[in-house]
Amino acid sequence: MSLIVQKFGGSSVGSAELIKNVARRIAEYRKNGDQIVVVVSAMKGVTDNLIKLARDVVGTPAEREMDMLLSTGEQTTIALTAMALHALGWEAVSLTGSQAGIFTDGVHTKAKIRDISPKKIHHYLDQDKVVIVAGFQGQSEDGQITTLGRGGSDLTAIALAAALNADLCQIYTDVDGVYTADPRIVPNATKLSEISYDEMLELASLGAKVMQSRSVEFAKKFNVVFEVRSSLTQTTGTLIKKESSNMENVVIRGVSLDKNQAKITLVNVPDQPGVAARIFQTLSDAAINVDMIVQNISHDSSPPATDLSFTIDQPDLPKALNLIEAHREKMGFRDIISNEEIGKLSIVGVGMRSHSGVAARMFQILAEQEINIDMISTSEIKISVVINLEKSEEAMKAVHRAFLEESTPIS
Amino acid sequence: MSLIVQKFGGSSVGSAELIKNVARRIAEYRKNGDQIVVVVSAMKGVTDNLIKLARDVVGTPAEREMDMLLSTGEQTTIALTAMALHALGWEAVSLTGSQAGIFTDGVHTKAKIRDISPKKIHHYLDQDKVVIVAGFQGQSEDGQITTLGRGGSDLTAIALAAALNADLCQIYTDVDGVYTADPRIVPNATKLSEISYDEMLELASLGAKVMQSRSVEFAKKFNVVFEVRSSLTQTTGTLIKKESSNMENVVIRGVSLDKNQAKITLVNVPDQPGVAARIFQTLSDAAINVDMIVQNISHDSSPPATDLSFTIDQPDLPKALNLIEAHREKMGFRDIISNEEIGKLSIVGVGMRSHSGVAARMFQILAEQEINIDMISTSEIKISVVINLEKSEEAMKAVHRAFLEESTPIS
Repeated sequence: MSLIVQKFGGSSVGSAELIKNVARRIAEYRKNGDQIVVVVSAMKGVTDNLIKLARDVVGTPAEREMDMLLSTGEQTTIALTAMALHALGWEAVSLTGSQAGIFTDGVHTKAKIRDISPKKIHHYLDQDKVVIVAGFQGQSEDGQITTLGRGGSDLTAIALAAALNADLCQIYTDVDGVYTADPRIVPNATKLSEISYDEMLELASLGAKVMQSRSVEFAKKFNVVFEVRSSLTQTTGTLIKKESSNMENVVIRGVSLDKNQAKITLVNVPDQPGVAARIFQTLSDAAINVDMIVQNISHDSSPPATDLSFTIDQPDLPKALNLIEAHREKMGFRDIISNEEIGKLSIVGVGMRSHSGVAARMFQILAEQEINIDMISTSEIKISVVINLEKSEEAMKAVHRAFLEESTPIS
Repeated sequence: MSLIVQKFGGSSVGSAELIKNVARRIAEYRKNGDQIVVVVSAMKGVTDNLIKLARDVVGTPAEREMDMLLSTGEQTTIALTAMALHALGWEAVSLTGSQAGIFTDGVHTKAKIRDISPKKIHHYLDQDKVVIVAGFQGQSEDGQITTLGRGGSDLTAIALAAALNADLCQIYTDVDGVYTADPRIVPNATKLSEISYDEMLELASLGAKVMQSRSVEFAKKFNVVFEVRSSLTQTTGTLIKKESSNMENVVIRGVSLDKNQAKITLVNVPDQPGVAARIFQTLSDAAINVDMIVQNISHDSSPPATDLSFTIDQPDLPKALNLIEAHREKMGFRDIISNEEIGKLSIVGVGMRSHSGVAARMFQILAEQEINIDMISTSEIKISVVINLEKSEEAMKAVHRAFLEESTPIS
C-alpha cells in the first residue's frame, strides 16, 4: 500500500464533467488499495470571475479580503470532487487548507507555508477515505485565511507529499510531461522520462511554464520526487528528482526560448562606483525584475564611460523607460535604446558541469545559421543567449537538432 | 454609541452595484459612531448555481459536502462587502461563521446554533472596524463547516444580536415591513409599526413569507427586538418585540391568506381508537406536514364511522394520496376525496384574548359575502378558515375591510 498525493489544476477540474473524469482517475488508484490525498485548484475561470467581481466593487481590494474571496474557489472544487467520488461508490472527504492543517505566515495573497499538521488527513486516511484538500490556501497563526499566490496548488501538493512522507506525488496538468523543447516550435522535441530539480528550475524560470519555480525549489529542499503528467491521457509523465550520476551522461537536458523579454541599453553611463547600483535599485523599487545584465567599455568617451544592457519582462518596458527617463540626470547616461524584438534561447543540463566545450559548440551552431548573438549569460548548468526575435525559433530548432537529435559526442 | 446588527439578504447583495448600496447604508450608521455588525447572505442566484453544479456531479450529494460547497456563497459576499466599505473609506473586516465563533451541532444542512463565542467580533469592534459575518453557516465542535438551513442568515443575525447584547437588530429585505395583509391582494393594507413575536409567528406560518418561524422563535426566546425593513428605501420598518399591554387594544393585527394548501377527506373511516393515529403517523413518516384536522360524525354508516378532513401543502398532495391508497386496507376508509381549490384565510391578533365575538364576526362577514366555510381552526390569537379558492381574495378583502379599515369597536 502506497500513499499517493495527486494534484489537479484548474483546467483539469473546469466543469462537472471534468471533475467526474478526475474522480474516475483517482478511483483507479484507490482500487489498488493505495491511500490517496488529492489537491485541487479552483475550476478554470472561477478565480478570474472573482477577481473581476472584486474590481467591480473597489479599485484595489485589500489583500486579506482577496484571500477570503479567492479561497472560495478551491473550496467549491473540493466539495464537488468529494461528491464525484461518492457517486463512484468511494468514501471521500473534503478539507479546506485550514482544516487540512496547512499553516502559513500572515502575508496575504502570497503567504509562505510555515508548517503542516496533517492530523486530520491521517484521521480520514485511517478510515479508508480519499482526502481532498483545497490547494493554494492555508491559515495564519491567528486564524486568518491566507493564499499562497501563483502556483500555490502545486506547492500545496508538494508540501503535503513532504509532510505525509508520500511514496509518490503526481502533478496532473494539461501537458503530458516536460519536453526537451516546446513541441509547438520544435516538432522533434521528445518527452523526458526524468529531470533533476536544478534543470527543472532553470527550465521553469526560462519560459517552459510547466510549473512555478517555488514549487520545484520546495520539492528540492525536502527531496520530494514528483511526476508531471497529463490528466487527459494514461501516459507516464516526467519524474522530477534529485540529480543522479547517470543524469550527467546527458549533456543537455532541454532547450527553451523566452520571447517575452525586452532589452534596454543605456549608452555612455559614467564609469563611476554606484551608478549601476542606483539604476537597478530604481527598477527594483518599482518591482521590475531584471534578468540578464551585460556591461561593456564604451570606446568613444572621455571621461571613461560604459554601455550597460539588461533584459526585463516585456510588459514592464514602458514603466521601466519612464522611470529611467525620470532619473536621467541622476544616472548620467547619454542615450537610452530599447528593443522588444529579442528572444532568449537557453540550453540546460547538469551534464555541462562535466563536459567542456558546450558553450563553444552552441555559438558555432548559431554562427552556422548566421545568427548574431546580442548578449550571453551562463550558469553552471545553463547557457543563455539573446538573439534576434525573428530568427529565434529557427535557432532553437538548430540547437535542439545538434544537441538532442544528433548523437554527436562532445569532448 | 449603540451596537447594531444589520442583516442583508441575497436580493439586497445580488450584484457588485447592490453591494455598494449596502455599504453606503452601513456607512450612514457608522457615521453616527455606532458599532456595526453586518450579516450577509449569498448573492442572489449563487446558491442555486452551486446546487445545480452539485446535481451535475451526483444525484444526491452528501450533506457534509453540500455544506462545504454552499458556505462559499456567503464567504464570497462578506469579502466583497468588506471591500465595498473600504472603498468608502471605512475599516471593515469579514469573518466566516466559524471565525465569528458560531458553534452548531453536527447536523449538516440544518444545523442548530449551540453557542456563540464572539471574542473575535469584539476584538475587531474594539478596533473601530465594521465586522461582516457570513450568515447561514457555523462550525461544529469537531471543526466541520455546517449550514443552518432555510432562513439561516436571519437566524445568524438574531443569534448574534442576542450574544452581543445588541441595541438593535435590523433585518433588511425586499419588503419594507410587515403589513396588515399582502398589499398585492389588499391595496388598502397598511404597514404595521410593531407586532408581537406570537403574532409574527402566526403570520409567518400562515404564508406571509417575510421571515422563517425559527428565527422569530429564537428572537422570542432570547427577547431580541428586531426590525424588518427595506434595503431599497429609507422608510422605517416594523418592530417585532415582546407583547405589551397596549398591543392588546388592537384586536386584529393582520389577515393572511395561504393559497398553497390542499384538502384531503377520508369518507367513512371506522370510528375506532388508533385509526387516526395510524393515518397521521404514515404521513409524518413521509415528512408530509399536516396542518388543520377536522373530524365529523358520518351519518350514513353502520358500524359507526367518521369523515376525516385535513390540509397539507399542495406539492405533497400526489405523494400523500399514493401513500393513503397504499394503506387503504389497513386504514379501512370507504372513499378518498381531495381538493386543491382551497384557500386558508386567517386573522391574527393578541387582542383576541381579551375581546370576545371575533370569530362570530368573521363568520358573519363571510356569510354576507355568501362564502361557505369548509373547515375552521382556532388558537388563542388566531382564527383560520378554509374556503373556496376562487372566492378567497374577495373574502380576504372583506375581512380586512371590516377588521382593519372600519373603526367599528368590537364587544
